[in-house]
Amino acid sequence: MFDSKNPQRTPISDLGEFGLIDHLVKNAKTKLSNTALAVGDDAALIDQGDHYTAISTDLLVEGVHFDLSYVPLKHLGYKSVVVNLSDIYAMNGVAEHITVGIAVSNRFPVEALEEIYEGIHLACERYNVDLVGGDTAASQSGLMISITATGRVEKGAEAKRSGAGDNDLIVVSGDVGGAYMGLQILEREKQVFLENPDMQPELGGHEYILERQLKPEARKDIVELLKGLDVQPTSMIDISDGLSSEILHLSKASGTQFNI
Amino acid sequence: MFDSKNPQRTPISDLGEFGLIDHLVKNAKTKLSNTALAVGDDAALIDQGDHYTAISTDLLVEGVHFDLSYVPLKHLGYKSVVVNLSDIYAMNGVAEHITVGIAVSNRFPVEALEEIYEGIHLACERYNVDLVGGDTAASQSGLMISITATGRVEKGAEAKRSGAGDNDLIVVSGDVGGAYMGLQILEREKQVFLENPDMQPELGGHEYILERQLKPEARKDIVELLKGLDVQPTSMIDISDGLSSEILHLSKASGTQFNI
Repeated sequence: MFDSKNPQRTPISDLGEFGLIDHLVKNAKTKLSNTALAVGDDAALIDQGDHYTAISTDLLVEGVHFDLSYVPLKHLGYKSVVVNLSDIYAMNGVAEHITVGIAVSNRFPVEALEEIYEGIHLACERYNVDLVGGDTAASQSGLMISITATGRVEKGAEAKRSGAGDNDLIVVSGDVGGAYMGLQILEREKQVFLENPDMQPELGGHEYILERQLKPEARKDIVELLKGLDVQPTSMIDISDGLSSEILHLSKASGTQFNI
Repeated sequence: MFDSKNPQRTPISDLGEFGLIDHLVKNAKTKLSNTALAVGDDAALIDQGDHYTAISTDLLVEGVHFDLSYVPLKHLGYKSVVVNLSDIYAMNGVAEHITVGIAVSNRFPVEALEEIYEGIHLACERYNVDLVGGDTAASQSGLMISITATGRVEKGAEAKRSGAGDNDLIVVSGDVGGAYMGLQILEREKQVFLENPDMQPELGGHEYILERQLKPEARKDIVELLKGLDVQPTSMIDISDGLSSEILHLSKASGTQFNI
């Protein structure tokens, strides 16, 4: 009905995910005095007076971030929460609250949503987080989960990407690459299954990496450990795309070179 | 690959939107002492010591909440923000920050996202709100926007759905039904267009109701007006599904009967 005023068509793939976000929000100047940190870190920081509130949003889209042919729905709910909490811990904060938005097509029955929410409630219990809001909507196809996590960061404890400096030590928690290896196993067994549905998936012996992929945990323990040791990290980042990619983010934000 | 443990299939339509949300989150007991208000109002309230932070999430899904054959993308971005801010104002608070999650399929070029973000930035400017975070993801089909709004509510100023009492007066701001009438015009002209693409849409004379539908405003002014008059409302709610539906919510939450 309406002609587009904008006949130019640049494919999103030309910019890539990070390029795209940079491009779209580069004009977002902040105006409020309590916006302590906006776009560009694991979470934003809002100044509440005697502490900060960290806030972060992530989307998980069917067919892009997860494949329901091998991801159990309860695990999916659990993981959706955990990946968001991880962004709060990556600011050296304590995650406290989440809101959940789920869009589903009518191919999902109520029981499927119940399984997802079982995982969400379980993650909330394990991480001592309250579910405080949400929205459920119809979608025309597929499943999409959007979670926003908020948490408390004490003033002076915040660990931004920009904080890294000379002679700092890079420390990695967990086993980088484990989740990726788990994904390879699942994708391999999916191909075997598609070619011969009578074959049973061979998952034995791979429990550890499968769990890293299907039911990862966020490193709340690291925040507690650092606090217990009275260690203030200069900088922190949540690893999601791999060590080299995250080191580049830290380097760009802090203006520091890294040796690995 | 994995057999579902849950062979029962209840269509989501059996419960309806509100029934579904009630059903899924009824087991969400809150654990944290700073969770002042959780699921079930326009926004949740987090106790920050000397004030509350209100937080609310909404999803807008293509083909369900909007039809791109007549909704300009910039208007869509603007409206996505405004409907979320409205939830914060409906707690008698001041909206301050938003995070934005957008999932798009590759049928949308970068320029389409730019138009959406133009509307988002414009709404942020008009309502004095900062965009502090976001996520952009691929989707397999269609466009989905998830926005979380947060804001500040002074202690004692909060207006919950449960606050209505005997002899309170019901007051409605704005013209109920205007946006719905605008939608009828747009749907009518879409049908005309589909049957005869040479016809020009007849939208003249309907500017007011079309604007209510395509580019609504949130009633920040009401919160300011009430504050200026030193009036503390006992209860507030954002009208989205119509007066009767919202009165039912207020009645259910406050245990009060209403005369209209």
